[in-house]
Amino acid sequence: MVDILRELQASSPDIEASAVVSVDGLSIASALPREVEEDRVSAMSAAMLSLGERISAELARGRLEQVYVKGERGFVVLMSVGQEAVLTALAGGRAKLGLVFLDMRRAAEDLSKIL
Amino acid sequence: MVDILRELQASSPDIEASAVVSVDGLSIASALPREVEEDRVSAMSAAMLSLGERISAELARGRLEQVYVKGERGFVVLMSVGQEAVLTALAGGRAKLGLVFLDMRRAAEDLSKIL
Repeated sequence: MVDILRELQASSPDIEASAVVSVDGLSIASALPREVEEDRVSAMSAAMLSLGERISAELARGRLEQVYVKGERGFVVLMSVGQEAVLTALAGGRAKLGLVFLDMRRAAEDLSKIL
Repeated sequence: MVDILRELQASSPDIEASAVVSVDGLSIASALPREVEEDRVSAMSAAMLSLGERISAELARGRLEQVYVKGERGFVVLMSVGQEAVLTALAGGRAKLGLVFLDMRRAAEDLSKIL
C-alpha cells in the first residue's frame, strides 16, 4: 500500500503527503514527510469523512465520494477506498486539482483491491 | 443578497440551491427550492466550516477558503464570504465544477461588499 502511495506522489508531484486511514481514524498506511504527524492526519481524515457523510446524506447528495478542503496554502483531499477506509492527500497551493483527483481515483481503486 | 443568489443560480443552472449562512450557523439569505430545509443547510454549513477551518489549520494549509463535498448525486460547495459568513451551494451530479467555483467566487465577492 505504501508503494501505491509513493507512486501517487511520484505521478502527482503536487501531492506532498498521502495516507490511507480507517473510517475509525486509525492509520493503515502512509507516505508523509517528517513534519506531518500521522496521528493528526488520521484524526482529521476520520472527522472530515464522518461529517462529509452526514452532510451528503442530510442534503440529499447520496453516498459520499470525495471531500476537499482548500486553504490559502494548499488542499486536503479525501476519497473513499472501499467501505472501510479513506485516502487522504495534502497538496500545495498551486496543485492542479483535476489532475490530483484523477491520480487519487486511480490510487484509490488500486488500494481497494488490496484492502 | 437574495438577488445575488438568484443571479448565481441563473448563471449556473447546475446550482439547485444556495444560501448565505453566518459562521454561527444562522441563515442570512437563501434561495432554496421547497424541498430543501433552510435550517438543515445552515447547520450543516456551519459544522463543515468549523471542521474545515480546524483541518486547514492543523494540516498547515493556512486560512480556509473553500470546502467541497461530493456525493454520488451531486455536490455541496462552501466558500467564505468575508470573515463572518459562508456561501453554500448545492449542485447536481453533472455540474461543471470549475464553472460552479468561478460563479460562486464572483457571487461571494459581491456578497462580501453588502455584508
